[in-house]
Amino acid sequence: MTALESLNWRYATKQFDPTKKLSSEDWQTLEQSLVLTPSSFGLQPWKFIIVTNQDTKEALRPHSWGQSQITDSSHLVVFTSLKEVTEDNVDPWIATMAEAQGKTPQDLEGYKDVVMGFIGNMSTEECQAWTQRQAYIALGQFMLTAATMNIDTCPLEGIAPEFYDQILDLSDTPFSTCVACAVGYRSADDKYATSPKTRFTSDQVIQHIS
Amino acid sequence: MTALESLNWRYATKQFDPTKKLSSEDWQTLEQSLVLTPSSFGLQPWKFIIVTNQDTKEALRPHSWGQSQITDSSHLVVFTSLKEVTEDNVDPWIATMAEAQGKTPQDLEGYKDVVMGFIGNMSTEECQAWTQRQAYIALGQFMLTAATMNIDTCPLEGIAPEFYDQILDLSDTPFSTCVACAVGYRSADDKYATSPKTRFTSDQVIQHIS
Repeated sequence: MTALESLNWRYATKQFDPTKKLSSEDWQTLEQSLVLTPSSFGLQPWKFIIVTNQDTKEALRPHSWGQSQITDSSHLVVFTSLKEVTEDNVDPWIATMAEAQGKTPQDLEGYKDVVMGFIGNMSTEECQAWTQRQAYIALGQFMLTAATMNIDTCPLEGIAPEFYDQILDLSDTPFSTCVACAVGYRSADDKYATSPKTRFTSDQVIQHIS
Repeated sequence: MTALESLNWRYATKQFDPTKKLSSEDWQTLEQSLVLTPSSFGLQPWKFIIVTNQDTKEALRPHSWGQSQITDSSHLVVFTSLKEVTEDNVDPWIATMAEAQGKTPQDLEGYKDVVMGFIGNMSTEECQAWTQRQAYIALGQFMLTAATMNIDTCPLEGIAPEFYDQILDLSDTPFSTCVACAVGYRSADDKYATSPKTRFTSDQVIQHIS
C-alpha cells in the first residue's frame, strides 16, 4: 500500500476486537516510530506511556467518556509532554547529541544557548502549549505508521488529563498527559469501518500562491 | 521501504537542491495526504497554504531566521489554523457530514451540540492552542507521507507568524500561521543528510504499564 492508500484505509476505530493483540514484533516497530519522531530542536519533550495492563485501562476508561477503545484495544499509548522546559530537560539532550557527534557538551554550548534563549522567550503556558504541539507530531506520524502496517488506531482527545496524570503516577514528574491513542485491530462489527471517509474538498482547505 | 525505513531515511533537510522540483503528480499525492489528515471531531480547523511563488518565498525568508529552505525548496507549506472556532466554522462541517451520510444538517443537531459544548468550554487562547495542535497532526503525517515517497522535508517552527499572516493576507481571515514545512529534494552538498540520526533511547522516552 502507498501512504495515500494507508490514509484512506485508516479511520478512527470505534470498536476494537478485544481478542486481537499486536505481535511483539509489530509493537516494537510502532514503538520505534515513536522514538524516531522529529521535534523542535530535536528536544523530544515527551514520554510515551504504553498501557497494556487491563486494570489500568479499566481505571482510565471512566475518565475517557467511557469509550470502549480504552479497554478493548491492544495497546493504549498516552502521549505526555513536559509541563515546562528547563535546563534539566535540555542538558540530557545536549549530552546525547554531543556523544553522537563525538564532541563534549561544552562544544555544543552555543546551540544550547539558542535553545535556552528560545525557551526563555515563552511563558510557562506557552511553553507547555509548545511541548504539546510536539507530541501531536508524534501522534500524526504514529497513526500513519500503524496504518501502513494495517494496524488500527483511534486518537482520543476526550480524556481527562488530570485523572490520567493521577492514575499514571505523573503528578510528581515533569510530564503531564496530552492526548491518547488506542491501537489494535478493528472489530468486524464496527460499522464505522465502512462509512464513507468525509473531508472538506481540496478547494476548501488548500490555497495556492504560485 | 517500510514506514520505519522511511523514518530513518528522513531528516530535517537543511539544504535543498533549488533545481529539483516535485512533479505535479507527486505534489497531488502530498496535497491529498493533507486533505486526509484526521482531526478532533473531524473539524479540520485549518487551511494549508502552498507557496511556490518565488517572490512570496523571498518575502517570507527574512521572517524565517533567513533559512535557505524557504527559497530553495520546491513547495513551502504553511500550516494555518483557526484563531477561534465558532458556529460559522462548525456549520460547514456539519453540512459536509450530512451530505456524505445522506442526511440533513438538522439530523446531526445532536452531534453539533456536542462539538459546540466542547468548544464552549475553552477560552479563546485554549481554543487556538487546540486548533494548532490539530495542525501538528497534519505536520507529522505529512512529513512521513513525503518520506515514503523519497521526498525531503524540513519542518520550520522558526518563523514569525505575524509577518507570515501579513504577507499571506491572512490578517482578515479566521486563520493564522502556525508552522511551516519546506518540501523538495536534498542537495548533494547537505552534510546533515549523512549525520547519524540522534534520538533518546527507547528507555528514556517509553514507559510500559503492563
